[in-house]
Amino acid sequence: MDHYYALIMAGGSGTRLWPLSRKSRPKQVLPLVEDKSMFQIAVERLEPLLPPERVIVVASEALSEPLRAAAPQIPPENYVIEPSARNSGPAVGLGTIHIRHRDPDAVIAVLASDHHIAEKARFRAVLEAAAILARRGHIVTLGISASFPSTGFGYIRRGEPLAEVNGFQAYVAEQFTEKPDIETAISFVTSGDYSWNSGMFIWTADRVMQEFKRQQPAMYDALEAIAASIGTDAYLETLERQWPNMTRQSIDYAVMEGARDVAVIPVDIGWSDVGSWASLYEVLTGDLEGNIMRGESDNNLRIDTRNTLVISNRMTVTIGVDNLIIVDTDDALLVCHRDRSQDVREVVERLRAAGFDAYL
Amino acid sequence: MDHYYALIMAGGSGTRLWPLSRKSRPKQVLPLVEDKSMFQIAVERLEPLLPPERVIVVASEALSEPLRAAAPQIPPENYVIEPSARNSGPAVGLGTIHIRHRDPDAVIAVLASDHHIAEKARFRAVLEAAAILARRGHIVTLGISASFPSTGFGYIRRGEPLAEVNGFQAYVAEQFTEKPDIETAISFVTSGDYSWNSGMFIWTADRVMQEFKRQQPAMYDALEAIAASIGTDAYLETLERQWPNMTRQSIDYAVMEGARDVAVIPVDIGWSDVGSWASLYEVLTGDLEGNIMRGESDNNLRIDTRNTLVISNRMTVTIGVDNLIIVDTDDALLVCHRDRSQDVREVVERLRAAGFDAYL
Repeated sequence: MDHYYALIMAGGSGTRLWPLSRKSRPKQVLPLVEDKSMFQIAVERLEPLLPPERVIVVASEALSEPLRAAAPQIPPENYVIEPSARNSGPAVGLGTIHIRHRDPDAVIAVLASDHHIAEKARFRAVLEAAAILARRGHIVTLGISASFPSTGFGYIRRGEPLAEVNGFQAYVAEQFTEKPDIETAISFVTSGDYSWNSGMFIWTADRVMQEFKRQQPAMYDALEAIAASIGTDAYLETLERQWPNMTRQSIDYAVMEGARDVAVIPVDIGWSDVGSWASLYEVLTGDLEGNIMRGESDNNLRIDTRNTLVISNRMTVTIGVDNLIIVDTDDALLVCHRDRSQDVREVVERLRAAGFDAYL
Repeated sequence: MDHYYALIMAGGSGTRLWPLSRKSRPKQVLPLVEDKSMFQIAVERLEPLLPPERVIVVASEALSEPLRAAAPQIPPENYVIEPSARNSGPAVGLGTIHIRHRDPDAVIAVLASDHHIAEKARFRAVLEAAAILARRGHIVTLGISASFPSTGFGYIRRGEPLAEVNGFQAYVAEQFTEKPDIETAISFVTSGDYSWNSGMFIWTADRVMQEFKRQQPAMYDALEAIAASIGTDAYLETLERQWPNMTRQSIDYAVMEGARDVAVIPVDIGWSDVGSWASLYEVLTGDLEGNIMRGESDNNLRIDTRNTLVISNRMTVTIGVDNLIIVDTDDALLVCHRDRSQDVREVVERLRAAGFDAYL
C-alpha cells in the first residue's frame, strides 16, 4: 500500500519484567518470545505490508543504538529521538510530523515495539483494512477480543456497525474506558460489547493533526513549530525548546478518548502485551507438565515441577514446585508465584526508593 | 581430662546440601549455621574440655588443606590422611591406632565434623561422663532424644539402667537398628525406649581395638600392620598396601552393632546432623514470618514470603511463595519445596550420571 507508514513506539521502559528488563534493556530489546528481540519481530512482521523505509521509530537517544542494531534494515534517519520520555501523546505527535514531512498523504499505523502477535498474516490483513477506513477519514483502533476480565487494559465499547472492509467488520467506537475495577471488567466481558484497547491506531497524518489541534491546541502549536524546523539546522534547538510544551499524556487520553469518527475493528490476532511474567508464560509453549525453560544453557533438572517458567543461563534445579516464575540474571534473582507477577512492578519501585540504582 | 582425645571424622562428602556443598567443598568446610565452618565450630566447642593437641582429624588429602586453614590451632601432624574414602569403619580404625601410638591409655570420643550442637556446655558435660564410663570398659554411645519418627537415622534401644555419672543416666544399649521404615520409626518413638544413633562414640583405644580384633580380624590385622609402621619411613607405603584390606563398612556395622558392654546415654543437646536443607532450616533462626536469609549480601526483598530459606550472595526477590529452599551459587541454582529436600541427593546422582562433573 502506498503512503502507508508504521510509527513504532519504542520509548517504553517496562519495569514489569524485572530482573530481565532494566532501564537500559527494556522489554522491546529482549528476545522474550522468539530468538529475536520484540522490536526486531515487530519490524519483521510488517515487512510483507510495508518496506522498512516506511517504518518510523520513536525512541530515546539511549535506546536508539540497540534498536538500530536489531533492525539494520530500517534507514538510520527513520529513528526519531525524543529529548525525554513524556508519555505516548507527545511521542505520537513527534513521529506524526516527521512522517507528514515526508509524505503529506501518509496513512499511519501507530504500533507497539514490545507486543506479541501470534497471527502475523491476520495482523497485516487487519492493518490493510484499517488503512482503507482511515483513508475515509476515520480514526481507527484495533480492539482485541477480551478473553478474560483483565483490569490491566483499557476497554472500547462498540456501537453500530460501520462498514465491512476486506472481511473485517468495523463498528462505531462509542466509549473508551481506562483500566476498570474487576466488577466492571466482568460486566464488560460478559456484555460482549467490549474489546481491549490494544493501543494500535490507524489514521491519516492529517486527521490526527486535526484532533491534536482541536483537543490539544498547545501541543499542536508546539508540534507545528517543530515541524517547521524539520530538515533545517534549527531542528534540534526547536525540538529542545518546544518539547516541554508537550503535555505528559497518553495518546489515549490526549486524542483517542475525545476524537470524532472513531472506528473499532474487533479482531483476534493472538495479541499479548507481554506485560508481566504471567503474561509471557501464557504466550510461550510449555512441555507436557506446563514447564517452560529459557536461557542460554540447557542445564536444568526438574523433579516434580509443574507450570513453572525458568529463565536462567545457569544450571537450575527445581524440586516439588509449581506455578513459579524463576528469573535468574547475573546480578539478581526473582522467585515469584505465577499469580503474583503484577507485584514485580512494586519491586522495582521499592528498589528505586531504596536507592538500589544498580538493579534498575 | 587427661588421656582424653577427640577423633573427628572429616572425610564426608555430603551431597545433600547441593549446590552449596560440592565434592571439593563438603558440608564440614561450609559456614552453614554460624559464620565459621562446621568443622571449625566442632573443634572450638571441644576446647574447654580438650586442648587442640588432643584433637585428631581423619580426612582426605584434598580436604586437609582447607581443614587445616579453618583450625590452625590443631597441630598439622594431627591430621591423619585416608588414602581413599572407605566409609567410617576404616577411618575410625586408622585414627584410633594413631591416637594409641601417642597414648596407649587414651580414651577416645569419635565425633562428627559437620553436626550442629546447640547446647555446647551440656555436650562437653556428657562427653566427660561418657569418658568415665569408657574408662570402666564400656563402649559408650550418645543417644539423641528422638523428637520425631525420622527414617533418616539409626535407632538405639535402651535396656536396664547401668549407671548414673555426673547427673547423666546411662543404660545398657540393647539393640541397634539401621534406618527404619516410617511405621517402625513411629513405634520406636512412641515406645519411649529408643534414641537416635548420633554416631558419637566414646571408648578407650584398647576396647575398640579388642572389638576390631574379635569382630573384624582382617581389618584388625591391617590396622596393626599400619600401626607398627607409624613414625617410620615405611608408614605411607604400609598404609597404601594395607588400606585395600580395610572393608568398606560403617563403624556402626563393623563394630557397634556387635560390640559387648555397650552403654547408651540418652541426651538432649540440640543436636542436628544438618543432613538436608530442611534440617538446616530447622537449626537456623528465622524472622517473624519464618524466613531465613543467608549470604554475603543483605540485598533481598521479600513480598508475602513465608517459611523460606534463601542462601544467595545476590539481590534476591521473592513474591508470594512459602516453604521454599532457594540456594543460589555461582554456577547453579536450586529452588526446592521445603518438604522435598531429601530429593537433593537424587539431583546429585542424576548430575553424576549425566556427566555434569563440573557441578558435583
